[in-house]
Amino acid sequence: MPQNITQKIISSHLVSGEMKPGTEIGLKIDQTLTQDATGTMAYLQFEAIGLPRVQTDLSVSYVDHNTLQMGFRNPDDHQYLRTIAEKYGIVFSRAGTGICHQLHLENFAKPGTTLIGSDSHTPTAGGVGAMAMGAGGLSVALAMAGEPYSIPMPKVVKIHLTGELKGWAQGKDVILYLLGLLTVKGGVGKVMEYGGPGVASLSVPERATITNMGAELGATTSIFPSDDVTRDFFTKMGRSQDFVELVADEGAEYDEIIEVDLSTIEPLAAAPHMPDVMKTVRELAGLKVDQSAIGSCTNSSYADLKSVALLLRDKHITPQTDLLISPGSKQVMKMLAAENLIEPLMDAGARILECTCGPCIGMGGSPVSKGVSVRTFNRNFEGRSGTQDGQVYLTSPLVAAMCAIRGEFSDPATWGEAPAKVELPDTVPSIRDQFIFPPDDGTVVEIRRGPNIVALEQFDAAPETLEVKVAIKVGDNITTDHILPAGAQITALRSNIPAISKYIFSRVDEEFQSRIENIDNAVIVGGENYGQGSSREHAALGPRHLGVRAVVTKSLARIHRANLVNFGIFPLLFVNKDDYDAIGQDDTLTIPVAGITAGSTVTATTSTGKSIELTNDLSEKELSIIKAGGLLNAVRQARSES
Amino acid sequence: MPQNITQKIISSHLVSGEMKPGTEIGLKIDQTLTQDATGTMAYLQFEAIGLPRVQTDLSVSYVDHNTLQMGFRNPDDHQYLRTIAEKYGIVFSRAGTGICHQLHLENFAKPGTTLIGSDSHTPTAGGVGAMAMGAGGLSVALAMAGEPYSIPMPKVVKIHLTGELKGWAQGKDVILYLLGLLTVKGGVGKVMEYGGPGVASLSVPERATITNMGAELGATTSIFPSDDVTRDFFTKMGRSQDFVELVADEGAEYDEIIEVDLSTIEPLAAAPHMPDVMKTVRELAGLKVDQSAIGSCTNSSYADLKSVALLLRDKHITPQTDLLISPGSKQVMKMLAAENLIEPLMDAGARILECTCGPCIGMGGSPVSKGVSVRTFNRNFEGRSGTQDGQVYLTSPLVAAMCAIRGEFSDPATWGEAPAKVELPDTVPSIRDQFIFPPDDGTVVEIRRGPNIVALEQFDAAPETLEVKVAIKVGDNITTDHILPAGAQITALRSNIPAISKYIFSRVDEEFQSRIENIDNAVIVGGENYGQGSSREHAALGPRHLGVRAVVTKSLARIHRANLVNFGIFPLLFVNKDDYDAIGQDDTLTIPVAGITAGSTVTATTSTGKSIELTNDLSEKELSIIKAGGLLNAVRQARSES
Repeated sequence: MPQNITQKIISSHLVSGEMKPGTEIGLKIDQTLTQDATGTMAYLQFEAIGLPRVQTDLSVSYVDHNTLQMGFRNPDDHQYLRTIAEKYGIVFSRAGTGICHQLHLENFAKPGTTLIGSDSHTPTAGGVGAMAMGAGGLSVALAMAGEPYSIPMPKVVKIHLTGELKGWAQGKDVILYLLGLLTVKGGVGKVMEYGGPGVASLSVPERATITNMGAELGATTSIFPSDDVTRDFFTKMGRSQDFVELVADEGAEYDEIIEVDLSTIEPLAAAPHMPDVMKTVRELAGLKVDQSAIGSCTNSSYADLKSVALLLRDKHITPQTDLLISPGSKQVMKMLAAENLIEPLMDAGARILECTCGPCIGMGGSPVSKGVSVRTFNRNFEGRSGTQDGQVYLTSPLVAAMCAIRGEFSDPATWGEAPAKVELPDTVPSIRDQFIFPPDDGTVVEIRRGPNIVALEQFDAAPETLEVKVAIKVGDNITTDHILPAGAQITALRSNIPAISKYIFSRVDEEFQSRIENIDNAVIVGGENYGQGSSREHAALGPRHLGVRAVVTKSLARIHRANLVNFGIFPLLFVNKDDYDAIGQDDTLTIPVAGITAGSTVTATTSTGKSIELTNDLSEKELSIIKAGGLLNAVRQARSES
Repeated sequence: MPQNITQKIISSHLVSGEMKPGTEIGLKIDQTLTQDATGTMAYLQFEAIGLPRVQTDLSVSYVDHNTLQMGFRNPDDHQYLRTIAEKYGIVFSRAGTGICHQLHLENFAKPGTTLIGSDSHTPTAGGVGAMAMGAGGLSVALAMAGEPYSIPMPKVVKIHLTGELKGWAQGKDVILYLLGLLTVKGGVGKVMEYGGPGVASLSVPERATITNMGAELGATTSIFPSDDVTRDFFTKMGRSQDFVELVADEGAEYDEIIEVDLSTIEPLAAAPHMPDVMKTVRELAGLKVDQSAIGSCTNSSYADLKSVALLLRDKHITPQTDLLISPGSKQVMKMLAAENLIEPLMDAGARILECTCGPCIGMGGSPVSKGVSVRTFNRNFEGRSGTQDGQVYLTSPLVAAMCAIRGEFSDPATWGEAPAKVELPDTVPSIRDQFIFPPDDGTVVEIRRGPNIVALEQFDAAPETLEVKVAIKVGDNITTDHILPAGAQITALRSNIPAISKYIFSRVDEEFQSRIENIDNAVIVGGENYGQGSSREHAALGPRHLGVRAVVTKSLARIHRANLVNFGIFPLLFVNKDDYDAIGQDDTLTIPVAGITAGSTVTATTSTGKSIELTNDLSEKELSIIKAGGLLNAVRQARSES
């Protein structure tokens, strides 16, 4: 049967399950990547698994997020990551080498392989035909341990491209067009697979911009064919050996087909405060611009910056507008330097920042109050720029540069003849020697841990019977933000479960911490939809650290439920929701956990003598994980038995 | 009578006083500079004076400190500075153009002129024979208004240089040697004037490194002759028209002469935590280094970075050591780019940061916990790096680079032949077009103020009789940190007196704020040595904003007393110190201020009927300033009368 590209990669990596949309499949993972903001927890979890070395073909640890290093916590994290990489066989990319997705595309991504990364823009590598997906830290840790990655089998949507981009439109405008068409929920549960005759007109950097920002569609991932354009890219990058052709079979089927004529796309801008609020640049003409910012994993390639350098050459930006440029990698910088293209950027008045994520993640470069900031990035959520009332527009590099020259949005029809498309030079200077490759044997390497980096503790297996005291009783719709707030102060503690756990429920109940300190085994009693919101795994890890062994609720949010399972906390449900009222803040529950089986009902008793029926919607596999004390314990047990 | 260089400049700029060491002199100021961290308050004060344009030959506003821009406050400050510059005739240097002292040396400093800057390292310009001094914001504001700058006439110390630097020693090692010899108090009340046959062997960038870090000696300033070396520098910089020769007359006299044979100086390192704790690099051999950082106003010149680039070419730094490089200016970057010298820095593994102060002021680049950081900067105070237990050593650029290559300090005897000294190329690319020059008429320019930037209020003149309620009664040795704490949160409010005033006495008395809210005119009652410590002018401005009109104490610290005068608060002294006990927290004092003359005694009465004799040590001029409502009012009055 003819296959599309997605089906080809999935079928060649399928470890379990069937390729039936919506059902769970397990995939062998060839490569992993992490960045520093999520990486420390992933590696703490990998350490807890206890393997001497990663089991993937390639794992890379990039430092690109918390690179400002204001105080000891970030540099300590980076030192930890460097020594972890050396010990466990991981390639390490130090701060300033570049942005993870740009570097991975240039140096490591391979057509036809699977890649998961603890960053939502990992699909960038889909630009060269890799199946690359964002994932949580524990998933990446397990993939490094050789475990398959489980996802629901996605639907495959073909984006059928015809025509060619015209005038001032760039690759970015293609994904902006799709965001306007499909919205930020348009890709959920789907792989966006590009095909059709228009594909050949898009360079690899343009394709990577499109797959990168497919994350904003909510897609599982996005992928382009690996074709002659891809072959040319690999040849010029000195990586011919990594090229394989990968295209959809003739007659391959798709769950959905969307037609896009590239020649109809004009320069676009995602308006405040969502990447799918789409305007044409034309209709924004006259809007004053306080800041332009060029860079990020979406638009920081050689082609992007060369197009900007050529546009800015012999011009000055207006005094009223700041222009910040964050190149994607040292390779990009070296290519620009070789053609004397850094100077036109400096001479025009731009600020040349380090090769990092920088302003895209609010690491500096905040706009002025109420300022209009035109950014080549991928997200314009309210406040993400660091300025709560900042007005962020997402555009292509050429649009952002033109806004800095004119000090305002203007109609591209007034910009004159559009520049020719930038091609890669025939030979690209390698920066392979910038990566720190691990020794063959890392056993003697000593991990360096700053005081804020604390190894994951090993949790107990569940006892036969749980006697748990109520630590807190909360109402309906409690979010993971209620359980563990975000914010810079608390987020800086993400490598330190004991420290971050001191903030559990801190904004809900000031006495929670002093109460749970005096409890050995605890239960949280909740209402409907407990644990909705952000997927942060610390909202389960923290309570588990404090002694929480069970959550008893009327209903649970999906991702938090999975996190509870992963860290060995029983997610139990009231059979009779009225029993919620029967449990008081000072009660103790006795739960016969040995008797719990998938979907069964057990009777718990309160310290006041009441009987409460509890059920669950767990699979046998999930139950065995919880009883083992969490997924890490379960994996360790399975490995020691095999 | 033959004159030394210092005497020549002072005598040609003397507006008042006599050139007798220790007595007050008033100097005409030709140029001013500000940086953004201190500049906003200086310009708020200049605005309050009410002139349409600065009266100096040249005033430059640089943005180089708070360039990370995490949130709206810093970019708002920078936008305010840009519009202020445009309105009042000030040259504006936007973020990323470079570090103020490096830029001023390259573009604006002139031999024989006077310069004050709201930054302690303003003496950098002494490297080309300018008399350049650090000063407070109000002093810079008054100089911009054409008022003379008052200082005690300094002693002049001749540093008589013989011989030439040898081997791996650089200009930095000369000032490190002097710091080891003289300590951080060795220059107080003195100008360090360099002379002797050794001067001719030092390039202008080397001289500027030495005068820059003369600030760490506590000196009023440091100055080199303007000689053939200086002429060559101006010629190559395309600034021949700014050159004038300026050397000491034969037979000129000095208050002190210190002999230094340059040929005996070896590479040195200031050890934690003070710039005068001097070690030889040799004796530190074997000490592991976690981070090297090259840059800052002390060592970020073309010559500094080229020497590093040539050393690093075809080498890699060790994985264990990070190397951060902050070039001094875009001019430095362009000169390096023209010789393909940026790539060797990148290829060696260095992080290339923006052309700003950066890690030197703790704006990022903090070392790891307990980390040894080798920096080409000028201060290694405990915690200044952002890492409280960081161990910071101050060295030359070559030493810092060698530490990154070897991963540890090592004996320069093992480094092989020392590199040749770097000379400027014959023609240096100009970056004059990077500065934003003001229009001839700024009257239509609208100042843009973010919500955190609040114009200085105009304070009332003193009434005939003051009825003041006691706002707080404190004990002995109250510091300005007690009055107004430091720290990032509070310092970010420095452009906003109403907001920062909410922190007045906040760490001393939690009820102070609610109490003073209900008081119209207030008095602070203090013990001995009130107001010691940091010179921050906000510790007087804040109380004045809250309604404090008098401080009654047993004794006062010198600088805080001057700040009280400047902002219109009477600094009064108990005639009988026992009367301190006679005033209670809830008392009101009636003070007949119309009767106060210089050194006189007046009788105040308390609300409980007690009589308290108060005196003062004010000059008639100071009294007239206070009665006018502060120095800004007094200057405005004098100007409207003249």
